[in-house]
Amino acid sequence: MPDRLTLSIDAMGGDNAPDMVVEGICLALEQITDVQFMLFGDQDKLNALLEKFPKARAASRVFHTDDVVSNQEKPGIALRSGRQSSMRLAINAVGRGEADGVISSGNTGALMAMAKFVLKTLPGIDRPAIATYLPTIKGGSVMLDLGANVSCDADNLVQFAVMGEVFARNMLKIDKPTVGILNVGEEVLKGNDAVKQAAQILSETHLPLDYYGFIEGDDIGAGTVDVVVTDGFTGNIALKTAEGTAKLFGHFLRKSLTSTWRAKIGAYLSKKALLDFKKQVDPRRYNGAMFLGLNGICIKSHGGTDAVGFANAIQVACDLIKTSLNENIKTDYAKLTGEFGEDLL
Amino acid sequence: MPDRLTLSIDAMGGDNAPDMVVEGICLALEQITDVQFMLFGDQDKLNALLEKFPKARAASRVFHTDDVVSNQEKPGIALRSGRQSSMRLAINAVGRGEADGVISSGNTGALMAMAKFVLKTLPGIDRPAIATYLPTIKGGSVMLDLGANVSCDADNLVQFAVMGEVFARNMLKIDKPTVGILNVGEEVLKGNDAVKQAAQILSETHLPLDYYGFIEGDDIGAGTVDVVVTDGFTGNIALKTAEGTAKLFGHFLRKSLTSTWRAKIGAYLSKKALLDFKKQVDPRRYNGAMFLGLNGICIKSHGGTDAVGFANAIQVACDLIKTSLNENIKTDYAKLTGEFGEDLL
Repeated sequence: MPDRLTLSIDAMGGDNAPDMVVEGICLALEQITDVQFMLFGDQDKLNALLEKFPKARAASRVFHTDDVVSNQEKPGIALRSGRQSSMRLAINAVGRGEADGVISSGNTGALMAMAKFVLKTLPGIDRPAIATYLPTIKGGSVMLDLGANVSCDADNLVQFAVMGEVFARNMLKIDKPTVGILNVGEEVLKGNDAVKQAAQILSETHLPLDYYGFIEGDDIGAGTVDVVVTDGFTGNIALKTAEGTAKLFGHFLRKSLTSTWRAKIGAYLSKKALLDFKKQVDPRRYNGAMFLGLNGICIKSHGGTDAVGFANAIQVACDLIKTSLNENIKTDYAKLTGEFGEDLL
Repeated sequence: MPDRLTLSIDAMGGDNAPDMVVEGICLALEQITDVQFMLFGDQDKLNALLEKFPKARAASRVFHTDDVVSNQEKPGIALRSGRQSSMRLAINAVGRGEADGVISSGNTGALMAMAKFVLKTLPGIDRPAIATYLPTIKGGSVMLDLGANVSCDADNLVQFAVMGEVFARNMLKIDKPTVGILNVGEEVLKGNDAVKQAAQILSETHLPLDYYGFIEGDDIGAGTVDVVVTDGFTGNIALKTAEGTAKLFGHFLRKSLTSTWRAKIGAYLSKKALLDFKKQVDPRRYNGAMFLGLNGICIKSHGGTDAVGFANAIQVACDLIKTSLNENIKTDYAKLTGEFGEDLL
């Protein structure tokens, strides 16, 4: 472990970039001191921003490029024509060992394609998956895939289960995380072919992970399992549905608490508690998803995030680097494939 | 329209049946007076319950059967061996014209299989879909399919779009409801083949419906469109994820508002507002999903619902019968297929 971590940042990715990137660095530095940044993007804009945030400037180096991957760009085209983009150069820094991890709030598909091309996947992994930490009634869980793979077969889901289990062990500090597959019912005969076959593999092959069985959508928030496994289409929609529901809930709550004077006085007295509550459900606290299965730490920050969310993504990156996540995945995965044969997974 | 509606009820379906069924009828009768019930199930249990609820007894007739479809039963097996089940007999009553609609809180797959077999689908519809009303920031939307079809092709999704549009026009009383397809991004190149092809059909064939384009999970709660179209796997998981998120949100809110004395006093003063809020997000208020595309009104109530939720399902059934929903779908669908050719849909 080096004394100081180095993160390479796609400073132009995201709706509010590069402002929220520099401000986010500044916020992160209030919590983490042993980190420095390589910022890839428009040097004029970045230097002007760093002027305003001397603390961020002291911890950052700027690497100029004019090229940015747009949100509309197809992954394949971004991969071929975006070789000088801020996203690609930031990834390259990890590939060359100059940085310990990369963060981007840009185009998810392009980021995945480039990261897979530059960093390669870990041994035994066909397709990387996007994983994140989610709050639950019991504390927190890990969910994957959140959008890297719009269609998945049973083998992909089994690989996600194994990677997710290691991720949860490192992130949540649980000895034996439980793993469930997201489905439309708990009964074994429910669902599509991919989930049914994956469930059969996980049940019958006695992999050394605690397979719980099928779970349903409401089990995510309930925290029924520590690791929620699903394909990227369903996972992305479930995650964003949860975000939208939280917003709707907040909307109804605000409306009710401002409906009468009595309610307003009550809300005033409960202000601190309501702010604590708001903080707990703030999606920015959970910003920073991991591209799991790559030979390098690559964090996808939400495209619409602000400085607070970006600071959280920096925190996630630092935590994962410090726990040597990828080394642990490699070791555990090798153990599994060694015991059960490469072709099983 | 008859003077009095008749609903046939699978009185044994659901975790809390038959108690919640009889209590739910009693609650519903406080709001609706022009309705009577045919209850199918265990006559000893039902008569004992009806003794306790004279109001429900006055509006109900009991039809005895010992047989019940279990939640674990495969749809095909239920269809063959459940001919004397409470579910099947309740559906038969609609098929024979003795009832105007049927409600069951039992096994969703079995209910769909039986209802499709007995009632048949409307002309031009390959597969029925489960649709429900959902609260949004803008008011309310309709979403389908919620679990009838775990995998759907583009034609299925287009049919859901047309049926959902008619449903929304009748349920939400909107002249020209907007229709969106749920996807992992708004860009046309995102998603799996089914959603991409369905989007192309809806964009290019100039169907007389207001096609908005792709929407994402957070657009459901935001109310971006009036009709959310998706396959049954994703729709079921999205709906249940929203329910789970609402529960999680409630959990955090309760914890915050009981954390200090000051918060407790504030919450006490806001009690009425908080109860109003609770009522707004209470999933029981939205219980009662419609099997859209069948030649008869068939309502699926949540398996875990209680009397309040079941009363809401009765309300939904009565509303849909009174607006002649199926006649409107038939007329509109015939217009569409007439103008654009049967094979288009």
